Amino acid sequence: MRVSSLVVVALLASLSAATAKAQPGSSPHVDPLPSWNETARKQAVIDFVNRVTDRDGDDYVPPAQRIAVFDNDGTLWPEAPLPFQVEFVFEELKRRAPQEPKLAADPMVQAALAGDVKKLLAGKHYDGLMRILALTHTGITTDEFNARVETWRETTRHPRFQKAYTDLTYQPMQELLKYLRDNGFETFIVSGGGADFMRVWSEAVYGIPPQNVVGSTALTKFEFRDGKPVLIKTMDQAFVDDKDGKPVGIHQFIGRRPIACFGNSDGDQAMLEYTTIGNPLPSFGMLVHHTDAEREYAYDAHPPASGTLVTALAAAPANGWNVVDMKTDWKQIWGTDTMEAANKVSDLLVGNWLAEDIENRGVVDRAHTTLEIADDGTASGNTSVNRYSGKAKISGDKIELGRLVMTRRAGPQSLMDQETRFMAALAKVTRYRIGDDGLLYLIDAEGNEIVRFSKIED
Amino acid sequence: MRVSSLVVVALLASLSAATAKAQPGSSPHVDPLPSWNETARKQAVIDFVNRVTDRDGDDYVPPAQRIAVFDNDGTLWPEAPLPFQVEFVFEELKRRAPQEPKLAADPMVQAALAGDVKKLLAGKHYDGLMRILALTHTGITTDEFNARVETWRETTRHPRFQKAYTDLTYQPMQELLKYLRDNGFETFIVSGGGADFMRVWSEAVYGIPPQNVVGSTALTKFEFRDGKPVLIKTMDQAFVDDKDGKPVGIHQFIGRRPIACFGNSDGDQAMLEYTTIGNPLPSFGMLVHHTDAEREYAYDAHPPASGTLVTALAAAPANGWNVVDMKTDWKQIWGTDTMEAANKVSDLLVGNWLAEDIENRGVVDRAHTTLEIADDGTASGNTSVNRYSGKAKISGDKIELGRLVMTRRAGPQSLMDQETRFMAALAKVTRYRIGDDGLLYLIDAEGNEIVRFSKIED
Repeated sequence: MRVSSLVVVALLASLSAATAKAQPGSSPHVDPLPSWNETARKQAVIDFVNRVTDRDGDDYVPPAQRIAVFDNDGTLWPEAPLPFQVEFVFEELKRRAPQEPKLAADPMVQAALAGDVKKLLAGKHYDGLMRILALTHTGITTDEFNARVETWRETTRHPRFQKAYTDLTYQPMQELLKYLRDNGFETFIVSGGGADFMRVWSEAVYGIPPQNVVGSTALTKFEFRDGKPVLIKTMDQAFVDDKDGKPVGIHQFIGRRPIACFGNSDGDQAMLEYTTIGNPLPSFGMLVHHTDAEREYAYDAHPPASGTLVTALAAAPANGWNVVDMKTDWKQIWGTDTMEAANKVSDLLVGNWLAEDIENRGVVDRAHTTLEIADDGTASGNTSVNRYSGKAKISGDKIELGRLVMTRRAGPQSLMDQETRFMAALAKVTRYRIGDDGLLYLIDAEGNEIVRFSKIED
Repeated sequence: MRVSSLVVVALLASLSAATAKAQPGSSPHVDPLPSWNETARKQAVIDFVNRVTDRDGDDYVPPAQRIAVFDNDGTLWPEAPLPFQVEFVFEELKRRAPQEPKLAADPMVQAALAGDVKKLLAGKHYDGLMRILALTHTGITTDEFNARVETWRETTRHPRFQKAYTDLTYQPMQELLKYLRDNGFETFIVSGGGADFMRVWSEAVYGIPPQNVVGSTALTKFEFRDGKPVLIKTMDQAFVDDKDGKPVGIHQFIGRRPIACFGNSDGDQAMLEYTTIGNPLPSFGMLVHHTDAEREYAYDAHPPASGTLVTALAAAPANGWNVVDMKTDWKQIWGTDTMEAANKVSDLLVGNWLAEDIENRGVVDRAHTTLEIADDGTASGNTSVNRYSGKAKISGDKIELGRLVMTRRAGPQSLMDQETRFMAALAKVTRYRIGDDGLLYLIDAEGNEIVRFSKIED
C-alpha cells in the first residue's frame, strides 16, 4: 500500500495563489527579490523575514530554529507535462530498451515507450508505474543510479522549453531560497520526489546540499563488490514523502518543526498545517498557484499530470497562507539564461524539412513540399508548385506560421489540392516538437500532430 | 525481525584502540585538542585535517564534502553500566508505574523495575526489552516524548559518576567535534540510539543540531488533537541504525559519503568500511578503545552491556583505522565541571547513616551501628560498642574506608561479633550507591552490596 502510493509521489504534486498579510516593510538597499512584482506576496515574505530576524522584536527566532521547507515539483520547478522524475524514467527505458530485450519486452515498458500513461496508471495500485519505477530505481548501486541521473540531466531537454530540466527552475523561488539563507534560514527540500534522484543535483541547482533533501526513500542494501562497499537500491521500507508523509518526513529527517513552508498542491497541505498551526514560533506559509499558461502552465483542480490544488487553496485564507498568483506576482519566471534560450530558435529546428505527411493523408508521391527555418525565424519553402516565405513566431516549443507570402503559379490538380491542405495546416500550427526519431512534428491548438517532416541533410 | 533488532540498538554498541599513521604535523598556535596526549592518534587526526584543508595540496577536499560521522554510545559518551537510553526507559517506568497500575502489572515492567536485564533479554526477539521500549517510546506525541527526555536529563544521575547523563561526554571527543567544525567539516551523529531521543539534547550537548542526528527511527503518525497538528510516535517501519544499517542510514539521511568516521564497536565497522574503503576522497577512520577502568571503563570482547569490539579491532590495522587507547591517548576524559563534581563528595552521601544489614545477616536488634560522612570526606560512627573515625577516600561513586581508628571498649558478645563483621565489611568497600529508596549501599570489589544503611534524619 505504501509502495503503491509512490505513484502518488510521481504523479501528484501541486501549487497555488495568495492571501497575503501586507505589512509596511523595510526597504533594503538592494532588492533581494527582483523577479517578484511589488505585490502583497513579496511584501509578506519580506515582513516575515524582518520580524524573525529583528533581535529587539518580540518575534525574534534564533537562527538554529529558522527552518524553511520547500516542496520541489511545481514549487521550485515545473511538473508538466509530466513530473520530471517520470521523464527520467521514460528516458531511461528508451535508452536501455534497445540493449535489453527482456526489458523491452515488458508490457509496461512498452506502454511507457509509447507514452501510454493511462495504461501505466491502470489498476488500483498503479502497477505499471510501480513496475517501471522499480525497473529504473532498484537493483543498481547508488553510484550507478547517480550517474544515470547525471546523464539524463546532461542529455535530455524539456519538450516545451527545450532546456535541460534542471535549468528550468523558477527564478523567483531561487531568489527566495537565497534571500532566506542570507537571513540565517536553513533551507530544505521536502518533496514527494525520490531523495536519491534530487540529491544528485540539488546542491548545484538550488544550493541545497544532499543532507537537506527530504524525499521519498527506500532502504539500500550494504554489500561488498570487488572488495569495495556499495549500497544497492531496493524498494524495501519505501517511504512516501507526500501528504501526511511530509510532516512525518520532516520530523524523521530534520527533527525540528519548520517556521516557513512553501508548496503548491494539496500534497503540501499537511506540511503547511504542521508549520503554521499551533506553532509556538512565528510562522509563514505560501502556496504557488500556477496561473500562467503563457509563460508556464495554468492549473489547479485539473493539472496536466501532478499538482492538484483544491483543498489547500480552500484552506489558505483561514490559515493565513499566502497564495502566489504566478501571473501577477512573478515579474519573470525563468532565469535570464533560460529566457534567452526560450526566445532563441532551437538549433534542432533550424534547417530544411521535407513534408512526409499532411493531416494523416500522406503526401503525393515525388512531390517536394518543404519548410525551411532559418535561425532568425525566417520560414520559407516549396509546395511543389509555388514558393512561400514569411517570419515564423517562435518561442520555446511554440511556433506560429500565420503570415506567409506565396507565389501564384498553377500546377496539376493533385499538387494544387495538396498545396491547399499544406498551407491550411501551417496556418493552424501552434507548437512543434522534434521527436527522438529526428522528425519534426507541427502541432495544432488541440495537440494534433498535423504535419510531419524529415530533415533534408545538406 | 527489524523491530526485534532494536534491542541490538539498545543493548549493543562498542569501542576501541589505534593503529595510527604518525606523520609530522604542523604546530597550530593554540592546541585544538588539549585533552589528547601527544601520541600518534592525535597527530593522525591533525595530519588528516591539514591534508584535506590545504588548498594547494593534492588531497584537498572542498568543505561541502567534509562530512564527519560519529557514533554516540561509547564514542562520544559512555554506554555503561547500561546504554543511557535504557537508563531512560527504566527511569520512565519507575516514574510512571506508581500512577499506572496496568503498566506496573506488566511482567516485563516488573522485570525492568527489579533491574532484571536477563529477563528482558530472554527469547529470540528480546521480547521484554522490545515491550518496554514500545511502552516508553510510542503512543505519545513527539512533544510529549521530548519533554520526558528533558525531565530525565534534568532529574537523574549516572549511578557511578553522579552526574546528569548528558554531562558525561568525553572531553577529547568534544574537542575533536569542534576542531573538525572549525576546519569546515559538518559533524553528524550516526548512532544506534533513537534519533528522537538524541535530538532533544544533541545541539546543547554536542553542538550538533537535530537535522545532523542519524539514529534508529520509526514512523510517526500525523493527526490533529484539539485542532492542532501533532505527530504520534509509533514502531511502524522501524529502522535500526546499527551495523550494516549505519551506511544505509548515512545514505538515507545524509546522502553523501563521509570522509571521516569515528566509532568504538563492531556496530560501527560497516560505516568505517563505507567511509574508508574505496572512497575516491581522502578518508579517516578511528576507533575508541575503552581501556581505562580507573577513569571510565575497560572492555572490548565483553562489555558491561553494549559495545562489543572484536571484529572491528581486528580489521583496524589492515584498513588503517586509528585505534585510540583511552588510557594513554586521553589526558583527561571528562570536562572540568564533571571532574570537579566527581571529586566532590556527593550531597546525597553526606549525613548520618544507620546500618540495617551487614553481609546479609541483618543487625542485632536495638543495636545502633552508624556511619557519618562529612562533606570533607571525614567518616565516623558507632559500632554500638565503640566509636571509630577516619578519612574516607571518595571519588565519584568510589569510596574507600580502609584507615579507621577505633576506641577499644568491650561489650556483649553479640555486639562485639557484629562490630567485627561491620569493620571487616567497611574495610572491603570500594564503591557506594544511593538507591531510589534513599538507602545507602556499600559495595565490595566484586559488586556485592555488603552493608545497607538508612538515613538518620537530623
